[in-house]
Amino acid sequence: MTNNVPRVVIVGAGFGGLTAAQSLAHLPIEVTVIDRHNFHYFQPLLYQVATAALSPADIAWPIRGILKRQKNTAVLMANVTGVDPEQRLVHAGPATIPYDYLILATGATHSYFGHPEWASVAPGLKQIEDATAIRRRILMAYEQAELIEDVEERRRLLTFVVVGGGPTGVEMAGAIAEVAHHALPTEFRRIDPHATRVILIEAGPRLLPTFPEDLSAYAQQALERMGVEVMTLSRVTHCDERGVDLEGARIDAGTIVWAAGVIASPAAEWIEAERDLAGRAKVGPDLTVSGRPEIFVVGDTAAAVDETGRTLPGIAPAAKQMGRYVAEVIAARVANRPRPGPFRYRHQGDLATIGRKAAVVRLDHIHLKGILGWLFWGFAHVYFLIGLRNRAVVALNWLWNYLTYQRGARLIVDGPDAQQAAQAEKVKPLESSVEVSRSQTNMAGQDWR
Amino acid sequence: MTNNVPRVVIVGAGFGGLTAAQSLAHLPIEVTVIDRHNFHYFQPLLYQVATAALSPADIAWPIRGILKRQKNTAVLMANVTGVDPEQRLVHAGPATIPYDYLILATGATHSYFGHPEWASVAPGLKQIEDATAIRRRILMAYEQAELIEDVEERRRLLTFVVVGGGPTGVEMAGAIAEVAHHALPTEFRRIDPHATRVILIEAGPRLLPTFPEDLSAYAQQALERMGVEVMTLSRVTHCDERGVDLEGARIDAGTIVWAAGVIASPAAEWIEAERDLAGRAKVGPDLTVSGRPEIFVVGDTAAAVDETGRTLPGIAPAAKQMGRYVAEVIAARVANRPRPGPFRYRHQGDLATIGRKAAVVRLDHIHLKGILGWLFWGFAHVYFLIGLRNRAVVALNWLWNYLTYQRGARLIVDGPDAQQAAQAEKVKPLESSVEVSRSQTNMAGQDWR
Repeated sequence: MTNNVPRVVIVGAGFGGLTAAQSLAHLPIEVTVIDRHNFHYFQPLLYQVATAALSPADIAWPIRGILKRQKNTAVLMANVTGVDPEQRLVHAGPATIPYDYLILATGATHSYFGHPEWASVAPGLKQIEDATAIRRRILMAYEQAELIEDVEERRRLLTFVVVGGGPTGVEMAGAIAEVAHHALPTEFRRIDPHATRVILIEAGPRLLPTFPEDLSAYAQQALERMGVEVMTLSRVTHCDERGVDLEGARIDAGTIVWAAGVIASPAAEWIEAERDLAGRAKVGPDLTVSGRPEIFVVGDTAAAVDETGRTLPGIAPAAKQMGRYVAEVIAARVANRPRPGPFRYRHQGDLATIGRKAAVVRLDHIHLKGILGWLFWGFAHVYFLIGLRNRAVVALNWLWNYLTYQRGARLIVDGPDAQQAAQAEKVKPLESSVEVSRSQTNMAGQDWR
Repeated sequence: MTNNVPRVVIVGAGFGGLTAAQSLAHLPIEVTVIDRHNFHYFQPLLYQVATAALSPADIAWPIRGILKRQKNTAVLMANVTGVDPEQRLVHAGPATIPYDYLILATGATHSYFGHPEWASVAPGLKQIEDATAIRRRILMAYEQAELIEDVEERRRLLTFVVVGGGPTGVEMAGAIAEVAHHALPTEFRRIDPHATRVILIEAGPRLLPTFPEDLSAYAQQALERMGVEVMTLSRVTHCDERGVDLEGARIDAGTIVWAAGVIASPAAEWIEAERDLAGRAKVGPDLTVSGRPEIFVVGDTAAAVDETGRTLPGIAPAAKQMGRYVAEVIAARVANRPRPGPFRYRHQGDLATIGRKAAVVRLDHIHLKGILGWLFWGFAHVYFLIGLRNRAVVALNWLWNYLTYQRGARLIVDGPDAQQAAQAEKVKPLESSVEVSRSQTNMAGQDWR
């Protein structure tokens, strides 16, 4: 074993970690990438998996496959449970891995503003598993509604609440409305999917708060044209299995999607670094944490600031730029070259899609909306996918989707456990309710179709 | 409600049930199709989902989508728990559905020859969920092996046992060997996937017992060339989490796939019909059960015999022919026309694929093998898929697979519950074993890579 070769351990193979690994490809070092999944995925299209337009495999790639030609790099699938910064060790399942340089790129998860109990009733959209769970809820709502007679309960099942008016919330609300009004209407015999209510709730005064005001206004108009009810200046005070409470109002709903808050993964805790309010590790201009020049933090779990003191946004381009920068710093140190200057973030623009022929794009001083924004958004996303196969499959699915209004991945499958859990969760309350027993009698007697 | 319109209820939307529904499209009747899934799937390609070549959505279609233009047909997603043949009612979740004609097409499941406890350690391959569970096991075996030091345990994890030498067993063994020898070798740094053992166990004297002997011999040679160890005349006497016992031998294995026995779904029990040993309902020449001219049974859950008294095989073409025939009988009865003659099964041939450029095909007196059989098999399967999108996606995936040796759907995802269950199941025994603690120390000290 060549013990003089510097060892770099990267925890997390999202945009930041993977870019760092790829940027270290040709150095005389040993790189180990650890992730709890065996795949890297393209988070910006997760909402399309959640709304049955794409399959998980369309937007994900095995990490090993991406890095296999990189001879200095090993990949481990393991759950990292902690770091020992004194001994310079990472604890990952049955293995303990020493490092000379550590890059933490473990991302972020949903924040329920001090109400973790809302997580089970209002899933967020960060992981592939979140997307398939939300897909199952959306599709099951229609299946359940078709199966029962109770009009109130049907109405509840066909009400979808999306909490949070950022890009993810806007994209989810638009996509659910498209499923309801385009993909499903001809397929049900008892319920009318056009009766679906999609309600998008935003605490602030406008949707897409990080976008220019004209694009926010356009997004709201476009969503309303699609039948989405947009409620700004509305704050969710409670979530439960049957709906949400706002300040002074109750919305009964069958499905709640959480797109409101984000909190960093516990990486900062592992290394006992200083944190900001969102749990992100505060990093210096070279993206290391204070007092640990060998530990870098990148992406959504880093609280990095730009020259003006503003915290960088938690988006893919920022994570990639940080990953690339950290690789440069390590390369310089390994080669005993002078270090690069401080990290500088270059904001490339903001994109959000609303639905068919409607998206908003801001690139420096250019604002695009409508069909032009939508085409730009589509080409940009296909371009950023990895590999010819996924680009072709996604483009083919989108073309088919556009021409037929159909969605190709409308399967309710999630492994037998999840399936049974969902069944138990959703069917049992109905069976025991009085209204349903009554309606059962009706159905058996004469009222069935 | 038009109560004079005859009501046909179809339970199960596999090949038999779906074909029956489609054949009833233009009749003045009310058709209700009930399935516990919201999709129909193409079972012959399930092994490709299990071995990460295809995604579930590539071989499955929402039942509602397939039948949406059929105005006389409603679809319900519900678990049928029983039938009341006296009252002519089907119990399906919260709903109770009356019928005038009932078609039971509920298929078959695995049989463990009186050892249902083997099911959890040796999953079979019937449902989409089975395929994703087996995929997870296969891929996790390599991930686990890469993570540990213990040589014996690594060897066990890289040993795959397939029980049953029929088409499914042959296809699974061949596909696992391809994954091991073509897709994975360059991606691991510590283990060598070429060290994988794939063992195919068949109780009878030859593989593919329903095929002509020359094709059986070819299949065995082709598998052995791919590195599969074929053991004929070998009977499994016990399965557990760490391997299988044969008569007089033990094989330690990380993954066991069950492709041996089949038993019918409980449909025959619901209607208290006479059953054969595999639990199938005995049906007369018009595919109704004795004494119930309004109840038809089709597909794998029917024990139908041909003119010579042989029970029909449990394959897709037989199920489809039965579904079509039953629709004709119902159409004749509804129109008060003379009934069609007895059901006649027409055997179209047998197909099984082994791997790249190797398959066996028997069509009447034509036997194909090698690349010719493989091309025939590929075109036939793409042809039988439903819809342009899935044909294009599957063909594209196969082409990519063929050119690159890669597999596009190599994700370990199954919803958070299944994921955690798998982790708990697989990782914990390792953590607590002495060998691994020892190796951990080694790794932390110096032995890592």
